[in-house]
Amino acid sequence: MPLLHIDSSADTADDSVSRYLTGLFARTWRARNGAGPYRHLDLCADPVPALGPAYTSLGRRVEREGFAPPEKVPALIENAAEEREWDLTRPLITELRAADTVLLGVPMYNFSIPASLKAWIDRVTFPGAYADPDTGESLLRDTRVVVVMARGGGYGPGTPRESYDFQTPYLRSYFGELGVRQLHFVAAELTLAALLPHLAHLEDLATDSLTRARAELTALATA
Amino acid sequence: MPLLHIDSSADTADDSVSRYLTGLFARTWRARNGAGPYRHLDLCADPVPALGPAYTSLGRRVEREGFAPPEKVPALIENAAEEREWDLTRPLITELRAADTVLLGVPMYNFSIPASLKAWIDRVTFPGAYADPDTGESLLRDTRVVVVMARGGGYGPGTPRESYDFQTPYLRSYFGELGVRQLHFVAAELTLAALLPHLAHLEDLATDSLTRARAELTALATA
Repeated sequence: MPLLHIDSSADTADDSVSRYLTGLFARTWRARNGAGPYRHLDLCADPVPALGPAYTSLGRRVEREGFAPPEKVPALIENAAEEREWDLTRPLITELRAADTVLLGVPMYNFSIPASLKAWIDRVTFPGAYADPDTGESLLRDTRVVVVMARGGGYGPGTPRESYDFQTPYLRSYFGELGVRQLHFVAAELTLAALLPHLAHLEDLATDSLTRARAELTALATA
Repeated sequence: MPLLHIDSSADTADDSVSRYLTGLFARTWRARNGAGPYRHLDLCADPVPALGPAYTSLGRRVEREGFAPPEKVPALIENAAEEREWDLTRPLITELRAADTVLLGVPMYNFSIPASLKAWIDRVTFPGAYADPDTGESLLRDTRVVVVMARGGGYGPGTPRESYDFQTPYLRSYFGELGVRQLHFVAAELTLAALLPHLAHLEDLATDSLTRARAELTALATA
């Protein structure tokens, strides 16, 4: 599947800046690349189920077996609870491995990524799932990840709140550890300016930020 | 409620280092302070429901009203979906405001806090909920927060993986923003050393780390 499109905002499409921007990217990309395989995960409408104890017990067994690849995991399953956890996990792994481009819509919630996206990360990051069993190389080394961030305030480089940005450095470390080498961040900032009277004086800056984000995403979608 | 005890590990009590350590703190604290009001939230057994669009629409309305305090929120609710969201949120706010000490058990999942804990943070952090409506001061300025972290590897100051620690700096910024001034971090590191053969040479360091964590928590629980 060339494009895996993941939204994590709790807002509906009408209210969500991140959904608006991922929608723009997806439409542009599909217009250029044809309506081929495309998958949309809405982590708010269809939340990834929370991990149970059998997820961690199975994961530790897989680690002890030298990071067995997904096709060898079923042989390591010891009970029905582990089988249920694996049934919830394997499709997410398959989708991520199959994607050429992963498009992530990520609003800032409490300075970090939404719980809905962390639930996907906590489940999809299964031991052994992204390493070539023969070479040890990352299977995601040619995957392109485009992170579309929306933030109520301003957290960019040089701003007073830069150190409160736990989206960008976190996702950079996380995807870097998975072996992703093509990682793009696009941010629309000050999204609350249009909604809250005491931030109204920032509306021009917010409009500029959204315009830049649109242009960057259009360029990335047609690259 | 003097002690609010929150666990977020997907492991059972038998396997979880963070649950073992929060249990030690809670028993020690209760033995000293009597079996008074005490609340235990298990965010794995009883997950906090994911946010719906009505949570964010209600939250924005409360912000526009100048961060109305919780007792004024019901008058701002416009539909049944918002009422449901508020019914899920208000008890968590009440528990956090009532606590003298908040005890958090936080395993490291993918370099950060578990999705289960982020779901609690995303819901409990409602506009206006922790500010004194008269003075604007934080209602949590005298709340003590004790964060008990468990990590498979080593992420302490000066280690090669320090920059991958998105637990400590994140929770420091988050609780600092809420106005919490008494924030303690206790970490048990290298917890995977006992489980994985290739980390067995680190078992002595892991034992030392656990011993230190026990001592620090006992001291904090009897302070």
